[in-house]
Formats: sequence, structure tokens, C-alpha cells
Amino acid sequence: MRKAVVGVMGGSSVSESVYEMARELGRRIAERGWVLLNGGRDQGVMAASAKGAKEAGGFVVGILPDKTDERAAPDLDIAIMTAMGDGRNLINVLSSDVVVACPGALGTLSEITYALKHEKTVILLGREPEPSFQHYAKRGQLLTAANPEEAVEQVASVLLNR
Amino acid sequence: MRKAVVGVMGGSSVSESVYEMARELGRRIAERGWVLLNGGRDQGVMAASAKGAKEAGGFVVGILPDKTDERAAPDLDIAIMTAMGDGRNLINVLSSDVVVACPGALGTLSEITYALKHEKTVILLGREPEPSFQHYAKRGQLLTAANPEEAVEQVASVLLNR
Amino acid sequence: MRKAVVGVMGGSSVSESVYEMARELGRRIAERGWVLLNGGRDQGVMAASAKGAKEAGGFVVGILPDKTDERAAPDLDIAIMTAMGDGRNLINVLSSDVVVACPGALGTLSEITYALKHEKTVILLGREPEPSFQHYAKRGQLLTAANPEEAVEQVASVLLNR
Amino acid sequence: MRKAVVGVMGGSSVSESVYEMARELGRRIAERGWVLLNGGRDQGVMAASAKGAKEAGGFVVGILPDKTDERAAPDLDIAIMTAMGDGRNLINVLSSDVVVACPGALGTLSEITYALKHEKTVILLGREPEPSFQHYAKRGQLLTAANPEEAVEQVASVLLNR
Repeated sequence: MRKAVVGVMGGSSVSESVYEMARELGRRIAERGWVLLNGGRDQGVMAASAKGAKEAGGFVVGILPDKTDERAAPDLDIAIMTAMGDGRNLINVLSSDVVVACPGALGTLSEITYALKHEKTVILLGREPEPSFQHYAKRGQLLTAANPEEAVEQVASVLLNR
Repeated sequence: MRKAVVGVMGGSSVSESVYEMARELGRRIAERGWVLLNGGRDQGVMAASAKGAKEAGGFVVGILPDKTDERAAPDLDIAIMTAMGDGRNLINVLSSDVVVACPGALGTLSEITYALKHEKTVILLGREPEPSFQHYAKRGQLLTAANPEEAVEQVASVLLNR
Repeated sequence: MRKAVVGVMGGSSVSESVYEMARELGRRIAERGWVLLNGGRDQGVMAASAKGAKEAGGFVVGILPDKTDERAAPDLDIAIMTAMGDGRNLINVLSSDVVVACPGALGTLSEITYALKHEKTVILLGREPEPSFQHYAKRGQLLTAANPEEAVEQVASVLLNR
Repeated sequence: MRKAVVGVMGGSSVSESVYEMARELGRRIAERGWVLLNGGRDQGVMAASAKGAKEAGGFVVGILPDKTDERAAPDLDIAIMTAMGDGRNLINVLSSDVVVACPGALGTLSEITYALKHEKTVILLGREPEPSFQHYAKRGQLLTAANPEEAVEQVASVLLNR
């Protein structure tokens, strides 16, 4: 049986408080025994969530835009090199059972968009839903969490109902 | 000298009026002598804009998500088969000098997002800017057109200032 | 009706004689009215075949591994930016009706391999068939041409029988 | 510290003896504590090597050509969905520290080709080197193993000298 995979998306350049939030999220995901999957680079939410997960003994998969691991976060267990730049954003969400989206910029938004399109549940953490996503909020495919603890509760609930 | 390439993005399932708008847009792009590039399938804005362009003697490139041309619009001059599903949305915008985004759903939004991220100017036709894109509207990277005629004027202006 | 697309594959670093052979091939493809498609960079067989085609008034599509056109050959009519490195080699062959493979290294071999796998006819020009491809030679999916003129005759024959 | 990743490539339709060889290879890779990475589908060498690895308590990553896990081998720990068909063959080799190539057809050959191009050492198991790869054999980038035990010894040696 494969383990549940929780995708954590978010900006490559974030504030200290978002960094700490992503780190706590990573830790809580690991404590639940889920695999954490992210974009793999040693930056922002990717680095923070990987670090948090490893601090709690978790397992981290990074899907890198690069063809080598030179820019990989140090806390990955598995680094997947795609050599396809932002084209890998689709792979990130297709490979996740559920997606948690932290604050970020356009890359993160592309991942939310792809996730919703491909029937994944998205949990927004520390960010508001785009008005154009209201349809998905209404049908319960787009959730909002106040903090990492709540996000992880929502992930658990989504995984239960798969 | 390569010809200017105008990317036309939009939904695969659209209303009659959006279909006609996309067809007129295609026609006007062709009349200017620009190449029209879209997602290539025989559906919605893709089919309509290709049809309009060909009716005016234009040239159309379709970037298909498929590995064969079975689902290609009949009005393409060149069909690029990517076999990579929605992952090709990034290729659509990287290969366009400027992007016109018609009404559509999540696929179109992913293309707007990728285009803004990769420094392309995006012209919204028949749709409102997402609030999260206001930054791009303010700096003139995201424009809004009331109709195809205005969109094409804006494209001309963007191409002039390249 | 779409025009026939002839893919020309080959090395990015080639001898003067291979360069001239690829240029003649490009010219002859253009004279037949076919579109020439290649990997798009300003190097080796890509640059030479594009140059030859343009000298004869042809039309050239380049499928670039890059996310910008900085390294594009000057003789492209259409530049498709994939941002996916060598992953674009599959796109090159899927988008060609028939493939002509000139001398090259591993990249060219990956394209021959992909082409045979996806049921495209491959014409070898200035190179010998790999022993492991004998099965494809026997069934007529892999042909060998002595010079550009013969290669173009074989392309014509393949296109006729599509 | 990331674990070593051994890519196992090979046909999707293989004989019973090749199936058993791939299964033994998977088992031996797991016994060494390395991660096994393959193309992820429930077929041929992919299914066999994953099965062998899991029987020995190993860890298996599958890089699927599909957008869902419907066709995934049952013995994967992590399934990466790429939605990009054979385009994922490049990802397979870029994400492996060393590649073992079992008997297979054109897909496997494309992976050997990509691996050599991207400076990975390739170990041929149960197959002969293509004549065109002699250059790589001479410089020690392409090795030949008589059986899974020898292949694993060669992998160990490559990993030591990274």
C-alpha cells in the first residue's frame, strides 16, 4: 500500500512568518506519517516544509524543475529531476493526493489551478481563495485553514474520504 | 525575421457568443499578418480562433496536448504534438510574443498565470482581471480589451514596443 | 489542409561536409513545398537545414529545448519554446510526418528511437542503421539514403502512402 | 543525506526469464538499502523489479507516463504522475544515480541513450551494447553485467566513486 502523499506548494521567496508556518506544516505532515511532496528547491516554502518534515522524521519528495540536483533542498529523501522548468508544476499536483497551498506568487497559483482542474482537493493556508475559485469552495474542493494544525486536520479528512 | 506570434487562449467549451468573439479575434489577427498560436484542439476558443484566422488567410499553429493529431482543429497549418496533456500550457505561452486570454476555465487561468510569470503581456478579452493580478495590471503587463478590435490594437502596441 | 512536415534531426556539432549535406537537404525539402521541422538551435544540422530551407523560400519550425529564443537559429519561421531540455526530442518526432536523421550523437539517436516507437518512418542520411534497428529496416520503417536527393525521394514516397 | 537511487529500465513485455532476472535485481537493490526507481507501470521489468524490491523490504519510486495511478505497479512506495507519455523517460534517468538497463525495446533504448548523454553510468544486464555505444564502453560509462549479482556489484562500485 502506498503512503498518502501531501503536496505542499508555496512561494520561493517568503517572509519569516510564512517560512515558519511552512516548517510547522512540514513537521505536522511528518508526524502523521504522510509523505511530503514539494517543488524541491532550496528556497522558501519548499525548503521550509522539507526541513520541518525531516525534523520530525518524515519523508520528503522534491520534484525539481532542474536537470541536476544542484539547487535541491538539503532535506529531500528523493529528488526527481524533470529538466522542464515550471512545466513540472503539473507533475507536483498530479503526484499529490491532496494539496496544501501556502502564500506564494504565480507559480503557486498555477499549481492551485492545475490541482483544481485535475480533481484534487486544495487547502489554502495563510491565503484567501481567488474569487474565481468560489465554485470550487462551494463544492468543498477548495478549503481554507487558519493554521498548520487545521490544515493537517483537513488533509486527514480528505484522505479518509478518498 | 520571424513573424509575430499571438497566443490565443480560452475555454474548450464556450457559449455561442464567446465562440464568435474568438472567431473574430482570429480573423483580425490574420488580417494583421501575425501568426495565431493556440492549444490546437477542435474545441471552443481553439477551434473558433483557428477558423477565423484561416477565413482571413492567416497562419495557425496549434500546440496539442495529445500524441497524435486526431483531435486537432481542422484549421491548423502546423500541429505540434506534445503528448504532455496540460503540461503543454507552459509551451503555449512561452512560444507567444503576446497572449490574448478569452473566457475559459482553469486551463486558461493556468496559461494567464504562466504568461505573467514569464514576462509576457496578457490581454484579457471578455473577462475581468483576477484581483490577485492587480499588480500586473498596474504595471501594464495585464490589459483588458472590450472587444476583438481593441484587443488587436493592444497587441499591435505591445509588438511595437518589444 | 495542413502541409506535410518533414523532421530533420542531427548533431549540434558536425563536420563541414555534414553541414553542407544538411543545408542541401533543407533546400530540397523547401523546394518540394514541405515544412521543415527541427530542434531549432543555432547549431549544426539544426542551423544548416534551416538555412538551406530558407534559401529556397521554405518554411521552418524549430522546437527549442529552451524557455526563450536566445539560442534559436536565425532562419526559423516559428520558434516553439518548450523549456524542457532534451525532453522536447519526443515532441520533434511526434510533430513530424516523416523523419530524416543525419549524423549526430546521442540526441539524434534518442529521436530515431522515439520515432520508430511512435510509428514514424525514419530515413537515415549519411549514417548506418544500428544493428538493433534491423527489424524496422526489414519492415520498411527505417530507410537509408545515399544523399539528400535520394532522401527527399524517399520522403515523397512515404508521404504519398500515408 | 539522500539515499542512492538506482534506476531500473527494461521492457514492458518480457519473457519469464527476464521477468525473474528483473525481480532478482530488484531484491538485490533493496538488500543494499538503495532506492529503486523505474517507469512505474504494472508491466514487465517495471512490475518485476518493483515486486522484487518490495519482497526484500526496499523502497520503490515509479515515474509514470500517465496522469493517474490507474496503471501503476502495486509495489510502488511513491508514484510520480507525469502525464507526459514517453517524455518521462528523460526524467527516469535524470533522477537516477546510476541506471541498470534490462532487455527491452525502443523505450529502454531511449533511456540508455538519454542516460549516456547526461553523464550517467549505464549497466547492461542481459543485453549487449549497441555498436554505436562503444565509445561509452571504452571510457567505462557503459558496463555489462552477466547477472543481477554482478550488476549490483557494479552499481556499488559506481556509487562509491561518485
